[in-house]
Amino acid sequence: MSDWIDEIKSQLPAGRVLTDLADRSSYSFDASFGQYIPEAVVQAKDKEEVVHVLKVANRWKVPVYTRGQGTCLSGGPLPVHGGIVLDISQWPREIEVKADDLTVVVSPSVLTARIDEEAAKHGLMYPPDPSSAHVATIGGNLAENSGGPRGLKYGVTKDFVLGLEVVTPEGEVIRTGGGTIKNVTGIDMTKLLVGSEGTLGVITEATLKLVPKPPEVQTLMAVFDEVRLAGQAISKTLTSGVLPSKMEFMDKACIRAVESFYPSGLPTDAEAVVLVELDGHPEALEVEAKLVQDVMEDIGARETKIAQSKEEAQEMWHARKQVSPAIAQIKPTKVSEDATVPRSKIPEMIERLRGIKEKHNVEIVVFGHAGDGNLHPNVLCDQRDQEEMKRVEDAVEAIFEAAIELGGTLSGEHGIGTMKAPFMERELGKVGVSMLKRMKDAWDPNGIMNPGKIFPEEGQKLVLRDE
Amino acid sequence: MSDWIDEIKSQLPAGRVLTDLADRSSYSFDASFGQYIPEAVVQAKDKEEVVHVLKVANRWKVPVYTRGQGTCLSGGPLPVHGGIVLDISQWPREIEVKADDLTVVVSPSVLTARIDEEAAKHGLMYPPDPSSAHVATIGGNLAENSGGPRGLKYGVTKDFVLGLEVVTPEGEVIRTGGGTIKNVTGIDMTKLLVGSEGTLGVITEATLKLVPKPPEVQTLMAVFDEVRLAGQAISKTLTSGVLPSKMEFMDKACIRAVESFYPSGLPTDAEAVVLVELDGHPEALEVEAKLVQDVMEDIGARETKIAQSKEEAQEMWHARKQVSPAIAQIKPTKVSEDATVPRSKIPEMIERLRGIKEKHNVEIVVFGHAGDGNLHPNVLCDQRDQEEMKRVEDAVEAIFEAAIELGGTLSGEHGIGTMKAPFMERELGKVGVSMLKRMKDAWDPNGIMNPGKIFPEEGQKLVLRDE
Repeated sequence: MSDWIDEIKSQLPAGRVLTDLADRSSYSFDASFGQYIPEAVVQAKDKEEVVHVLKVANRWKVPVYTRGQGTCLSGGPLPVHGGIVLDISQWPREIEVKADDLTVVVSPSVLTARIDEEAAKHGLMYPPDPSSAHVATIGGNLAENSGGPRGLKYGVTKDFVLGLEVVTPEGEVIRTGGGTIKNVTGIDMTKLLVGSEGTLGVITEATLKLVPKPPEVQTLMAVFDEVRLAGQAISKTLTSGVLPSKMEFMDKACIRAVESFYPSGLPTDAEAVVLVELDGHPEALEVEAKLVQDVMEDIGARETKIAQSKEEAQEMWHARKQVSPAIAQIKPTKVSEDATVPRSKIPEMIERLRGIKEKHNVEIVVFGHAGDGNLHPNVLCDQRDQEEMKRVEDAVEAIFEAAIELGGTLSGEHGIGTMKAPFMERELGKVGVSMLKRMKDAWDPNGIMNPGKIFPEEGQKLVLRDE
Repeated sequence: MSDWIDEIKSQLPAGRVLTDLADRSSYSFDASFGQYIPEAVVQAKDKEEVVHVLKVANRWKVPVYTRGQGTCLSGGPLPVHGGIVLDISQWPREIEVKADDLTVVVSPSVLTARIDEEAAKHGLMYPPDPSSAHVATIGGNLAENSGGPRGLKYGVTKDFVLGLEVVTPEGEVIRTGGGTIKNVTGIDMTKLLVGSEGTLGVITEATLKLVPKPPEVQTLMAVFDEVRLAGQAISKTLTSGVLPSKMEFMDKACIRAVESFYPSGLPTDAEAVVLVELDGHPEALEVEAKLVQDVMEDIGARETKIAQSKEEAQEMWHARKQVSPAIAQIKPTKVSEDATVPRSKIPEMIERLRGIKEKHNVEIVVFGHAGDGNLHPNVLCDQRDQEEMKRVEDAVEAIFEAAIELGGTLSGEHGIGTMKAPFMERELGKVGVSMLKRMKDAWDPNGIMNPGKIFPEEGQKLVLRDE
């Protein structure tokens, strides 16, 4: 056994430093691709334990991979270079709502959906709503800067982080930001750390911003015979003085998948369905829902429907939520992408996706947060079919290229991790990546925090095949 | 003449590299304290000129102080170590609204208020509204991460920046972020640069987010006989399901100053006035205005008034805008602070300010963006009175200490610059400041970008006196 493992064990309770292969194996994967077995797993339960682990790891130059619930879609917690997986999911879950400040202080292990539930008891709301909110930790959301449908109106995780407590790669505790809405004291370390994918330190506490909970929500569905028209209707809605809380898109393949998996009454002959949620005062919602309906019909929706009851609205959203499980029925493997484009480029991106699908002979379905240009093209495939996976790799690369060419980005909300690292220079340029790397090296001179992520390694390529 | 000046002149049109004392003197101050004469002024008009200046300056290790219109309240553009003032105010002013993307691309010299005016033509809004918006450049706003009254509902400058073009301290051009609402590609350089006070590079273009313009606004005034009650009413309003677009506070001294400067019908015997602006659909505003009025009255407002016309609303806001010029009549010098506290601590902060005023025998008036805890205590004094200025220095230090003790921050929206640099460690700790410094050194190894700001120099103290 390594000396560094003994050193770590010296100050942690027995049973929370795991070295058995079976234990280590269960920390070898996340919700993306690849499997890597760490040398040890540490289940940390407080800040002092994190400080201890990082000090030892930094001295021995052992990689540290921080992990919440492992729901990451881009490989964030994968221990690609071995070393330690630092599991924070066992940390006591603490949520302290400060209603008068409109803030909440949370420990990193809290499940994201719980924050909004607690806030609701005070008439408040925590808007970020990644699909995994019920199973993912806020720590993971902070590391990846997670998005969600409500990002359209409210923004993403980063927009709600006021302050952090962080253990630096050298094991020092710092506090960034604080409990105030405005703070311009020094260069902004808070926003730097959120979304840094565990490469700059370990977040041990966060102060988040809450907003007043809107009294009502209203849902509306529009059905289109042409994808292009759906794209135009989305753009037009957003320039009509209304900012919906959600605006989701499903293409024909998604609609059909849902209907065969869990019949929801969606029109299987339509090319696209757009689902809109508005929130606010009932008086305003009535006016806004009518306005959105008019826009959709003017642009050429073949059918629009305003939910007449909470139940009807729930049914509409239930259909949307079935997309992921439904498409998983079509083929065993699902490569879920989140390349994002400026809103006006949505119709063109959808066109490009159609071309990519044909050229590379792969199955692609498209759904996602169309209101903010964050589509989720999902490539459906079978990981055991190496020849198919080669075509999928090419298709994924073509998706990234299309997004960048249209003025978009590699990742809207999943993060770079391992899969997209090889493409970083195409978006940020050589100098851009090197400026990022300078920061990383300045904060983490021994390179122990999540090595192998974000920054491409010499000659690194996208690989979805087992090699 | 220095060789580096010749080198700079070699690639810039005659007349845009200024070395006469008279010219240099006019670049020696901003809206804060102190006067420093640079060795040269360069009026850059495009990116290539900035690249040239930075490459020469970096080679010769000459300080570069980027400057917009010089309205900074914290000394951002002051050339405290001589060198070059890089004036971007002469740059062509370009605003390109991309209505379908809900974005706008601007050059750094654009006056901030113009962005909102252009957006309005498309039914859109650029929310950040610093008081200086009509005279300040967006470049300065980006460097300082400027706030404003609408920050309460919409956030500050940083919340609206999607992408930047930046010249690094070594004269390389990089692009960060982009034109999409969501972007998690790599560690976030965009938010790092916004608010870095010109210490990490020169911003040469920005892509900003716009939002749909709310169809209506509604204004309401509440008068209080106790400051404590005003504070409570503000907190209570914000937990009642309404998020006003603005929520401003004036204390008795401000009310009286306004009434003697420009009589506006404010009640001079009141202890505090709270002004609230709501925006949204007319149907919702009616409900919300009534709700806010009820909250104010329940808490104990002695009088509330909902503006019955646009003119009446304008009068109320006009009175608020007179505070700054009005208090400038009381004494010749005004030290305008922006220490910010968590919202619930507003009543306690106001109490502390009263104590500081008495203890140090100085004149302090308080107004500001109470809805987000961002008060503006202004110390009124006479800079020629050295004995008084010593007391003012002590009072300002006590204000910073009070804000930090109450869980707040040194600066909510003005920035650190020179005046607050000596207090950085008290808020961020030694390690926190050193982690900031590491980033700065990594990006700017020769320390040429705005040296003397943010980071305290050995033994540096707050000095408002001429020494």
